[in-house]
Amino acid sequence: MERYAVGADIGGTAVKLGLFSEEGGLLDRWETKTRQEDSGAHILEDTAESIRRQLERHGVQLQALRGVGVGVPGAVMQSSIVNRCVNLGWGVKNVAQELSALLDGIPVTVGNDANVAALGEMWKGGGQGCDNMVMITLGTGVGGGIIVGGRILPGRFGAAGEIGHMCMNPDEKAVCGCGKNGHLEQYASATGITRMAALYLEEHPQQQTCLRALAQPTAKDIFDAARGEDPAGLQLAEQLGDMLGRAMAAVSCVIDPDLFVLGGGVSRAGQILLDIVGRYYRHYAFHASEETPIVLAQLGNDAGIYGAVRQILQ
Amino acid sequence: MERYAVGADIGGTAVKLGLFSEEGGLLDRWETKTRQEDSGAHILEDTAESIRRQLERHGVQLQALRGVGVGVPGAVMQSSIVNRCVNLGWGVKNVAQELSALLDGIPVTVGNDANVAALGEMWKGGGQGCDNMVMITLGTGVGGGIIVGGRILPGRFGAAGEIGHMCMNPDEKAVCGCGKNGHLEQYASATGITRMAALYLEEHPQQQTCLRALAQPTAKDIFDAARGEDPAGLQLAEQLGDMLGRAMAAVSCVIDPDLFVLGGGVSRAGQILLDIVGRYYRHYAFHASEETPIVLAQLGNDAGIYGAVRQILQ
Repeated sequence: MERYAVGADIGGTAVKLGLFSEEGGLLDRWETKTRQEDSGAHILEDTAESIRRQLERHGVQLQALRGVGVGVPGAVMQSSIVNRCVNLGWGVKNVAQELSALLDGIPVTVGNDANVAALGEMWKGGGQGCDNMVMITLGTGVGGGIIVGGRILPGRFGAAGEIGHMCMNPDEKAVCGCGKNGHLEQYASATGITRMAALYLEEHPQQQTCLRALAQPTAKDIFDAARGEDPAGLQLAEQLGDMLGRAMAAVSCVIDPDLFVLGGGVSRAGQILLDIVGRYYRHYAFHASEETPIVLAQLGNDAGIYGAVRQILQ
Repeated sequence: MERYAVGADIGGTAVKLGLFSEEGGLLDRWETKTRQEDSGAHILEDTAESIRRQLERHGVQLQALRGVGVGVPGAVMQSSIVNRCVNLGWGVKNVAQELSALLDGIPVTVGNDANVAALGEMWKGGGQGCDNMVMITLGTGVGGGIIVGGRILPGRFGAAGEIGHMCMNPDEKAVCGCGKNGHLEQYASATGITRMAALYLEEHPQQQTCLRALAQPTAKDIFDAARGEDPAGLQLAEQLGDMLGRAMAAVSCVIDPDLFVLGGGVSRAGQILLDIVGRYYRHYAFHASEETPIVLAQLGNDAGIYGAVRQILQ
């Protein structure tokens, strides 16, 4: 019997799903809406239902699935129990057990979404060939995933890879989403760099810059400006690179990975981001780790389904 | 045939050795002088010779050894090749192969000394029962060892666990032993806190403190003063706790370990160190990891031979 596996990347607005061959080929990709009502009580039912329907369409028996790998936006313990997903309305929930029960006992493995994306990039994206790597996702927040020996390192409290909450500036007065101060996320996320731009424009009222015409400069606006040698754009890109490069140097002092992969919306800045972050990384890194490669993510929004299914197919 | 293993902790002044039963019992402990002449060319010969002599004394055949585990003060690749041990005079050296050849082909496994000490503490010391832990050695420098899944995480360039070289203060003008600036080691090592004491006394000429009578206050002097509520002693202990607690919080954002073990000379301060560091750790840590236990090392100078041999007996 030919066998298959499904990857499910559960997000706040949609559940992205992929049907994979046992060899890891992506056969089909589809989505279903995330129903947040009733504290997210229907999300797993909807996901199971959607998997059953799609398998039917492909003429694949449920029992031909080796399993379903899941990514969720929250902390995960022992590859099954989720401890609070604010975006989904979940508290403590045994996602592996519940989803498995909805799918006639098919094995289910669960990981945090940032960790799962890292696993996807290791398997089929920017990190191919690296068993020990770190992916940093520069999106609304800053997420991270740590891969050691080809597998997700979840950490005792499911908090491994929470690089966005590394304290970079103990004197910072502004508060991070998590309630503490001076975290990397406050400087290097999409919202962080927009915040820094507003501060910069306020503190430099005389500085001529194309950013001043914009109501709220985005990461794209800022890196476009930097590419055009706009002084404010350059300064803001350097600030982000300094914070992120220093945080990555700290990561290397802990696990000295084979490679860093940068993903998320801010990483669409591309080469200019790699150049600036790489320069600060080498400046701050312990000499032995100065040459660690830094590359861009390659799978975009598909990293989640690839990584989710990899938990089953590894 | 009863089987045995040897742990060898090669340091700049002495090679510490231990003969262990296969079950991990320490049967005998001895030392031999580290001969640094000729770029350390005789160290492995001397070590092999010393092992042969001691085995003879115990009536143990060389072939009854499952192997020799070694710790060295330098970066180690693939559990065998050392890349520069300044204290021993070594450049790139295949220690596993050379020592094995001197011992009739007995298997030899090599690890960095801080990593090996961490493995020892996990096995028989403060970290028992923890498969994922971090040991931080507060000695002349600040060393660290990372254990993931019960094994040493060496890192791509042998630099995993180099927590002493995490940049805590990018504005620091004073230079670390490694040539870069603002590293944890400059604040939290035995030499670091002595340096900070000199600065403090210079910057607070009016402050009455028992430390002023001392030519060069040691970590012990400073923590003794803090215990006696001496204002300078308290201030310096808090400074160290702040830096170390913040660095440990950063470590938790990367690997979220089960436990931290503090060792080395500075850790002899004991409970007061745990109290202060723990307070700052909780202040800076991502909320999920706030309760990570912090304990003292238990094996002292024997951590090296225990950890060295554990590489063979795991």
